[in-house]
Amino acid sequence: MSFMSSTWGKHIQLSLFGESHGEGIGIVIDGLPAGLEIDFDKVDLEMRRRAPGHNPLGTPRKESDDYSILSGYFKQHTTGTPLTVLIKNKETASKDYSQMETLMRPGHGDYSGYMKYGGYNDYRGGGHFSGRLTAPIVFAGAVCRQMLERRQIYIHGEINQIRNLKSEGIRIENLDEKNRQAIKSLKFPSLDEAFALEASQVIMDAKAEKDSVGGKIELVVLNMPAGIGGPFFDSLESVLAHLIFSIPGVKGLAFGDGFDFASALGSEVKDEYGMKDGKVVGYANHNGGITGGISNGNIIRFEVAMKPTPSIGKPQRTIDMDQKLETMLEIEGRHDPCILPRALPVIEAMTAIALYELICAEERKHENLGGK
Amino acid sequence: MSFMSSTWGKHIQLSLFGESHGEGIGIVIDGLPAGLEIDFDKVDLEMRRRAPGHNPLGTPRKESDDYSILSGYFKQHTTGTPLTVLIKNKETASKDYSQMETLMRPGHGDYSGYMKYGGYNDYRGGGHFSGRLTAPIVFAGAVCRQMLERRQIYIHGEINQIRNLKSEGIRIENLDEKNRQAIKSLKFPSLDEAFALEASQVIMDAKAEKDSVGGKIELVVLNMPAGIGGPFFDSLESVLAHLIFSIPGVKGLAFGDGFDFASALGSEVKDEYGMKDGKVVGYANHNGGITGGISNGNIIRFEVAMKPTPSIGKPQRTIDMDQKLETMLEIEGRHDPCILPRALPVIEAMTAIALYELICAEERKHENLGGK
Amino acid sequence: MSFMSSTWGKHIQLSLFGESHGEGIGIVIDGLPAGLEIDFDKVDLEMRRRAPGHNPLGTPRKESDDYSILSGYFKQHTTGTPLTVLIKNKETASKDYSQMETLMRPGHGDYSGYMKYGGYNDYRGGGHFSGRLTAPIVFAGAVCRQMLERRQIYIHGEINQIRNLKSEGIRIENLDEKNRQAIKSLKFPSLDEAFALEASQVIMDAKAEKDSVGGKIELVVLNMPAGIGGPFFDSLESVLAHLIFSIPGVKGLAFGDGFDFASALGSEVKDEYGMKDGKVVGYANHNGGITGGISNGNIIRFEVAMKPTPSIGKPQRTIDMDQKLETMLEIEGRHDPCILPRALPVIEAMTAIALYELICAEERKHENLGGK
Amino acid sequence: MSFMSSTWGKHIQLSLFGESHGEGIGIVIDGLPAGLEIDFDKVDLEMRRRAPGHNPLGTPRKESDDYSILSGYFKQHTTGTPLTVLIKNKETASKDYSQMETLMRPGHGDYSGYMKYGGYNDYRGGGHFSGRLTAPIVFAGAVCRQMLERRQIYIHGEINQIRNLKSEGIRIENLDEKNRQAIKSLKFPSLDEAFALEASQVIMDAKAEKDSVGGKIELVVLNMPAGIGGPFFDSLESVLAHLIFSIPGVKGLAFGDGFDFASALGSEVKDEYGMKDGKVVGYANHNGGITGGISNGNIIRFEVAMKPTPSIGKPQRTIDMDQKLETMLEIEGRHDPCILPRALPVIEAMTAIALYELICAEERKHENLGGK
Repeated sequence: MSFMSSTWGKHIQLSLFGESHGEGIGIVIDGLPAGLEIDFDKVDLEMRRRAPGHNPLGTPRKESDDYSILSGYFKQHTTGTPLTVLIKNKETASKDYSQMETLMRPGHGDYSGYMKYGGYNDYRGGGHFSGRLTAPIVFAGAVCRQMLERRQIYIHGEINQIRNLKSEGIRIENLDEKNRQAIKSLKFPSLDEAFALEASQVIMDAKAEKDSVGGKIELVVLNMPAGIGGPFFDSLESVLAHLIFSIPGVKGLAFGDGFDFASALGSEVKDEYGMKDGKVVGYANHNGGITGGISNGNIIRFEVAMKPTPSIGKPQRTIDMDQKLETMLEIEGRHDPCILPRALPVIEAMTAIALYELICAEERKHENLGGK
Repeated sequence: MSFMSSTWGKHIQLSLFGESHGEGIGIVIDGLPAGLEIDFDKVDLEMRRRAPGHNPLGTPRKESDDYSILSGYFKQHTTGTPLTVLIKNKETASKDYSQMETLMRPGHGDYSGYMKYGGYNDYRGGGHFSGRLTAPIVFAGAVCRQMLERRQIYIHGEINQIRNLKSEGIRIENLDEKNRQAIKSLKFPSLDEAFALEASQVIMDAKAEKDSVGGKIELVVLNMPAGIGGPFFDSLESVLAHLIFSIPGVKGLAFGDGFDFASALGSEVKDEYGMKDGKVVGYANHNGGITGGISNGNIIRFEVAMKPTPSIGKPQRTIDMDQKLETMLEIEGRHDPCILPRALPVIEAMTAIALYELICAEERKHENLGGK
Repeated sequence: MSFMSSTWGKHIQLSLFGESHGEGIGIVIDGLPAGLEIDFDKVDLEMRRRAPGHNPLGTPRKESDDYSILSGYFKQHTTGTPLTVLIKNKETASKDYSQMETLMRPGHGDYSGYMKYGGYNDYRGGGHFSGRLTAPIVFAGAVCRQMLERRQIYIHGEINQIRNLKSEGIRIENLDEKNRQAIKSLKFPSLDEAFALEASQVIMDAKAEKDSVGGKIELVVLNMPAGIGGPFFDSLESVLAHLIFSIPGVKGLAFGDGFDFASALGSEVKDEYGMKDGKVVGYANHNGGITGGISNGNIIRFEVAMKPTPSIGKPQRTIDMDQKLETMLEIEGRHDPCILPRALPVIEAMTAIALYELICAEERKHENLGGK
Repeated sequence: MSFMSSTWGKHIQLSLFGESHGEGIGIVIDGLPAGLEIDFDKVDLEMRRRAPGHNPLGTPRKESDDYSILSGYFKQHTTGTPLTVLIKNKETASKDYSQMETLMRPGHGDYSGYMKYGGYNDYRGGGHFSGRLTAPIVFAGAVCRQMLERRQIYIHGEINQIRNLKSEGIRIENLDEKNRQAIKSLKFPSLDEAFALEASQVIMDAKAEKDSVGGKIELVVLNMPAGIGGPFFDSLESVLAHLIFSIPGVKGLAFGDGFDFASALGSEVKDEYGMKDGKVVGYANHNGGITGGISNGNIIRFEVAMKPTPSIGKPQRTIDMDQKLETMLEIEGRHDPCILPRALPVIEAMTAIALYELICAEERKHENLGGK
């Protein structure tokens, strides 16, 4: 990994590039095995879940996420050399972004980025900070996900809170293949229909008020084998957290019982083990499938808190960097009143990348040394 | 960074080694500048805060944390070549650990580590998974912290919850130098005396019951300059999360309003900017000093949830890996009924390492290119 | 750095992608400072030196090296986020490459690549192994070079041997700015005109014979400050060697006296120091400006041996991977009879990248610690 | 990999530490598989080949290379967590090194290191630059070598030139197991006995003259499978070169025909392929077993040029950094008149590390994707 911000990984190395209103955005994925036949229907489905303009709960703004493969794919298989995806930007010249050069939108990376890059960053539509950059991430995640699914490892996420409304949570017994597929077409990704209906209304209400709402996403990983991850610097929690906190808008992450651990006694949250039919089982899973930084064979389970998008139509105080003055800003435009429905596939993508990366690390070590 | 689990970093590269009951534990710190005069009194103070046996709220077990510097320090200054610290283990042969070879302690890394390492890991006292390994991390953090303090950047943490008891939280106005120093000698690190007293009793009660308790730690960073971190893969949140989730027992992390963002409207949590005396100020700090993955000049603020230590004296079901049988386990010994007082300096150390790493990345880039 | 083969670096991170006959080739350069105004005339000059079709000594095959900047450049300055360059491939469908799928060209990466990638690699024109991939490297090098030139560090290379013909070698006293510029327009990059003329004829003769020739390149770096590099794993020699040996066709590298050291006595090759006008000087420079893996203030000097291009028109025995048979191959087409004139700007580019990377590493460390 | 100089690798990560006259030197090896039973007899044999004081051709100075394993080895097997080796320094206080603080030895890293570290480096005996640091490298190489030998991959090196004397070179037909073992006990590692005898005399003559001599080492790797390495940044040549050029005293490296390629025609150095008994064979091996940066199944073959050790007893001009004056220096002490006999096991060790690292990278990719 590097601290370049836009480059990540060791076994699977990602190099993310592009600005929201530049020539295009994309990603280079280095380290994939040769000979993988990518299922592009699956990729496209994930891309569509994230894309704007398809969902009344999100922005009506249409962006083209049509991608082209620049390299690394030949005769319907990965070549083993870098797989590069490019999404060209369109009609980027049509709007006037000069206001964004100097007026710093509260809650966004405008001001912090200005300070980091000395004012040289591309400010149009957030530039490299734009949520649009998550499109290539979803592509990369969709590829890694296929590598996981070859191992029968499945990722499933749902929104479980919008404002004060909470769902009943993910019910593992519901996660047959049919439901895991069905949720991908839902405008509001939750299998709790009543909650989905009500929460959608909360979002529409916020939109009507030129406001936005936050919420929570719950995620599970089924069939994760025991033994993936490691103690200390690259615990499974660390690597997942690293990638998930890199998604714009994520402000909290908790594994298993998470913050509820704070009020618990040790005897209340013990994850006892037992044997069933010659296999190790967990009698409980407070730790969300990870102990000592390593998967323990239980279902991986974590929760992500996301903030309301800071792009709201209500007037806000801010600063003009040019004139060094305080001023007022009303963010026009068709922004997402709630980012969670579109962020969910991004969180799933990052999860797939993190898990595949760590699985690669582990499978290498399985040399034939005799073993116990 | 690597995914070796025990090696981390780019500008400051750490290589952590050792097992709880092997020859010794230690860390190699590569990438420090030459010519730094380390203040060992400060290092020793941090080491003592973490060390067992000094605090009635923790384990009465005494371990020697006496360290020796093997390399990288000459004539009272860092040489610029790797700084290596070794803590020799003592009296490690005195106890019988054979039970730990096959009985997997619930909630620990015993079983997941067994699966990862095929049963070859050193099981005595948790081996490389032991909390004892955090001692060299505190050393490394204490050195990085001195580099931050040269820049007037200060890290301050407090326990703010034990079980259901909550403190009034960190009060920034209290954080003069005197209080920032004073807290380092407190058995229970909170400036809220009433809370500290009550919470200590909750811990002692759990201990009496052979049980343990969880809690929360709040942390602030004062004077963090704007512009540190980056968008996407190495956001400030990502790098902090990576290191903090690598600490045994941490199960949740939230920046700024964290999980409270989930129930908020955008208009309720806006971090407006203004100008005061020619300087940019934030009218609010819901984002905990980080927007777009980059510090924005406000106080860095986050919260960490820790689970109750799983080493409890009450009987628990578990498995015997040798006989492939379910069995019962009562963890004997003098374990911490609450790990938070000793974990707090570790969290501060990891924070110091993460911030110094990212500051190094940033300062390099300030080439004289003319600039705006 | 990674071992992905196509990703490199720490402070400046490169991600190279593309295949000779795919959609396009390019590079993502992460880690450049924001605010750099790139001199594209200088970039284009370097690109032209490498490009085929401009030089009677090379292949008459024309390829378009027209590049577009996809990201990281805004309002004539680098943004600090990844700079991405794309060179689209043209008319790639016009030729039949099916023979290359199964017939392994001797001396190329065809067979070794087939074994690595299990036959999935793009074999057309060498795919990702193609010398065409050095075009984006020259781009990256030209940018890094501008960062060096801001520090008055200059790279200058010359061919000093073709077959048995040897030049008089680089003469430092000739390297004024005029000559350093002039060489960039020479078809045969050597300031020794007589040698250039004769050597050009040797190349033309080989071409007429459907054969190819090897040679040597000598390179110097002027004004390299002392103190760049490090002992052991990332010595200046190591980092230069790493990048230079990644150029197709390079088979030898020697610093300073290089292989002549083998027959020398220590007393014959001593690099004594002296003081002149209050400055440290070297009375000799057998070590090529590097001692202990670190620049010592003398001119950096090294020599690169390149093999004759293995694409020759004469018949060669080889194997058909499909039929598992030995067979004959005559490589048709318009190949370079000598790769050195076009490889020289690639070697200079790699040198620029290596030096800038290490300078970045060093400048970061110059913290104000008091110092001696 | 990092550019910390003392940290290297991705799958096998090394962290080298220590100074010649500090507390001790050592290495942390992260990334080894769990369950490896190290053959310490083999390790000790390699350590002894490198150690000073055992060979009349080297320094009579005795150093203890007794090592202890600090971590990562339990019950006669690697644990999978970091393997740490420590070699304590002895009697380091007995000598006065104050002269070395200010007098820069020509040809060593004294001056360049002074400039890099601002004078803070440990100058005693070369500090972290000392050849003594190669002892832990030999240890690490001996472990990696055992991983190679499990795959029937064998490394064999010989000195093939001392001053103007040249051996007949490595003869592959001689490399049965008996000879590969026998050479490890030779004071002068060459199977060409006549050459060994004469060359030893050349070294003794130089010693008598208070001078030193350079030479060349040839190295082969038997049974290297095809498909290891990669195009561009991490070609097999690049990774080998990176590590080999990090060995003090190495100034040249050439693969296969190396610098002889410069004077060759393509038709003279073609490595044609054929089929023999259903297997691919090479009719020639000018490329030293590597084409396109990847092993091609032929024997890996390269040559290393080493300079005469710069520690000679004859008077040399140098500078006093304290007084900023030119002065004279006569290096007292018992230095190696020729470093090659002791450097050879270090080169073999680095080769083993590089090959094992790249093999790890490759074996991970062999997922079951169907395949051709």
